[in-house]
Amino acid sequence: MNNFVWKCPTRLVFGKDVIETVADHIKAEKGTNVLLVYGGGSIKKNGIYDKVVSSLKGAGIRYTELSGVQPNPRLSLVLEGIGIVKREKIDFILAVGGGSVIDTAKAISFGSALEDGRDIWEDLFMKAGSVPPKGIGVGVVLTIPAAGSEMSNSCVISNEKTGYKRGVNHENNYPAFAVIDPQVCYSLPPYQTACGSADMLSHMMERYFTPTSNVDITDAILEGAMRTVITYGPLAYRNPKVYEYREQLMLAGTLAHNNLFGCGRVQDWASHWMEHELSAFYDIAHGAGLAIMTPAWMKYVYKENIPRFVQFAVNVMGSRMSIADQEKTALDGIARLEAWFKSMGLPTSFSDAKIPTDKIETMAKHVLEGGRTAAGGLRKLYHDDIVRIYKIAAEAGKE
Amino acid sequence: MNNFVWKCPTRLVFGKDVIETVADHIKAEKGTNVLLVYGGGSIKKNGIYDKVVSSLKGAGIRYTELSGVQPNPRLSLVLEGIGIVKREKIDFILAVGGGSVIDTAKAISFGSALEDGRDIWEDLFMKAGSVPPKGIGVGVVLTIPAAGSEMSNSCVISNEKTGYKRGVNHENNYPAFAVIDPQVCYSLPPYQTACGSADMLSHMMERYFTPTSNVDITDAILEGAMRTVITYGPLAYRNPKVYEYREQLMLAGTLAHNNLFGCGRVQDWASHWMEHELSAFYDIAHGAGLAIMTPAWMKYVYKENIPRFVQFAVNVMGSRMSIADQEKTALDGIARLEAWFKSMGLPTSFSDAKIPTDKIETMAKHVLEGGRTAAGGLRKLYHDDIVRIYKIAAEAGKE
Repeated sequence: MNNFVWKCPTRLVFGKDVIETVADHIKAEKGTNVLLVYGGGSIKKNGIYDKVVSSLKGAGIRYTELSGVQPNPRLSLVLEGIGIVKREKIDFILAVGGGSVIDTAKAISFGSALEDGRDIWEDLFMKAGSVPPKGIGVGVVLTIPAAGSEMSNSCVISNEKTGYKRGVNHENNYPAFAVIDPQVCYSLPPYQTACGSADMLSHMMERYFTPTSNVDITDAILEGAMRTVITYGPLAYRNPKVYEYREQLMLAGTLAHNNLFGCGRVQDWASHWMEHELSAFYDIAHGAGLAIMTPAWMKYVYKENIPRFVQFAVNVMGSRMSIADQEKTALDGIARLEAWFKSMGLPTSFSDAKIPTDKIETMAKHVLEGGRTAAGGLRKLYHDDIVRIYKIAAEAGKE
Repeated sequence: MNNFVWKCPTRLVFGKDVIETVADHIKAEKGTNVLLVYGGGSIKKNGIYDKVVSSLKGAGIRYTELSGVQPNPRLSLVLEGIGIVKREKIDFILAVGGGSVIDTAKAISFGSALEDGRDIWEDLFMKAGSVPPKGIGVGVVLTIPAAGSEMSNSCVISNEKTGYKRGVNHENNYPAFAVIDPQVCYSLPPYQTACGSADMLSHMMERYFTPTSNVDITDAILEGAMRTVITYGPLAYRNPKVYEYREQLMLAGTLAHNNLFGCGRVQDWASHWMEHELSAFYDIAHGAGLAIMTPAWMKYVYKENIPRFVQFAVNVMGSRMSIADQEKTALDGIARLEAWFKSMGLPTSFSDAKIPTDKIETMAKHVLEGGRTAAGGLRKLYHDDIVRIYKIAAEAGKE
């Protein structure tokens, strides 16, 4: 295990009908005049908006609305939010949504506290290792699981003018609270449940596939959490309104990304990096892109650390251990993972997702742009490696 | 799963030689004038005291010492500490030790912030559900693992005048940071490693044995963490100076008790309650008492929830699953747990620990004193049940 520091101060409020208590948690943070941030109209259709607003009104909490957050949330809306915070003397921000809404709220929070003369984009997002100010505070009502931003220190924003998508990761970014009612998932389309399950599992796999030795305790915890997603993802996919399935999956999604599971481990994240280009170029859902890129990455790198892939196969995917032929066990684990993605209707190859193969060189180039020299923690991947992995993903299913 | 709220803001600083950074973490909490709380002379013998003091001096942090904390930490020392804090205008408390030292520091911290006219013992410890003030702040350098107080909200103090031992559990009690270097365990006597392993495992088992259904994700995480203790307890017991064993065990001890693993579950704690009387009456180590009481409790209650005991046997203790005879599998798990305790030289019966049987009625009475109507979450236990469990513990090993 490597030395580590871990701190996650977010109050997790989890269970049936907890959204009705959201005003109590805002009051505990001394919020009296709230900016309510959300995306499109879905929270108005499924009743979440009404529950939140009724809780705020019941507690006499003033609020101003900022809606219209889109996937890959934009800097312009963040700047609009900062303007409202200053003009209306907002003292707390409530994000009602998934990762994009939460990240927008985080950026508005620290952007509002930025001292005069500093620019949120140039001085924070475009500077590696920058420290955002503490911010006025963010609370979350989670409506779409998987991104994990509700209990994480990360905030990713896209600058639509420059085309860059950049993150600020810092302890000051943890939300004050995350209110999570698994019932909000009842209305998610099955495909979104599948993509969310793939994303959660990936957040765990990116931490699991490590070159760090002596990590048994986090390995064991990760394996348990991964098996939970393996079991409950397909169940929730087929039975969207069963609370018992939704609660397991939703808690897994939050725990997957607060980084307790990653403590003391070098992490990988190459599949995420390669997927980001895939979804940037072809507008494919992030979880679907991960279902394509992760098995391809595995097929390319497993020989680097066969014991770890055997452990994954046996302890997570339920493969039968063969000491005499460990490679066979490792490959069986990868095949089972592909079958699991397919069982929820996810693509596992370029052709499944109707993605052409002519941009592979360009995407590979983009993966390593912005001062990156290599991708991946388990095995360092350079341009040619990344091209080969995209080609494996392109060829998958054709054999 | 039941609805739950979980918040644990303690900064976990874990790894080799991290004690040398303790001053940085005090400064981050704005501590400038520190009360250094510790127990006897062991931290002077093993060099931890020197490391802490050298870090404080290097950073120009003033400190006043309060030593002499004993197991079952006493109210009188807490009151002495509060006096020093007020007299010396102390602004932060550093606990260097195990559970007793940390709990003493927590009580001094909130006791110092108590408004005039309120009595720390009568108004906080003796009142169920009392809310301690925020306190001046506590940091921890952990020297003895297992109690888990370094990342918990609990604080247990004994009033040597009245004979009562009582706790105040509140979110305000979480330490600001816990600095944990597994190397501090190198000098622990093997018996203390064994007792610590039993205590950690018990903190997990008290959460694992629940009547709550649909708790797969916390079950799976708990099982992984328990297997880690099962593996590394005996290894560290036999090889005290191997870092790789100490780190797994020490992290397990901290995670066992910050209550993430207990989220959404009714917990049991009957074995702990019964053990407290055993160690109060016979001055036996807490971990040793748990090794006696836990198997006895299991033998008495397992029929209440055979599937859960089968799951424990198979997923934690490595028993072979027998669907046709689940009771046999459940009992095999209990037998394996007893064998595990014995493998580290721990007693699993009254006679192993040379405890007489004449106080069983009295101890059982004490368990349910102080307004308690029953013990245990998996199965409610009343006086006669508790007497029978003590008798099972008394008879164990004689068959």
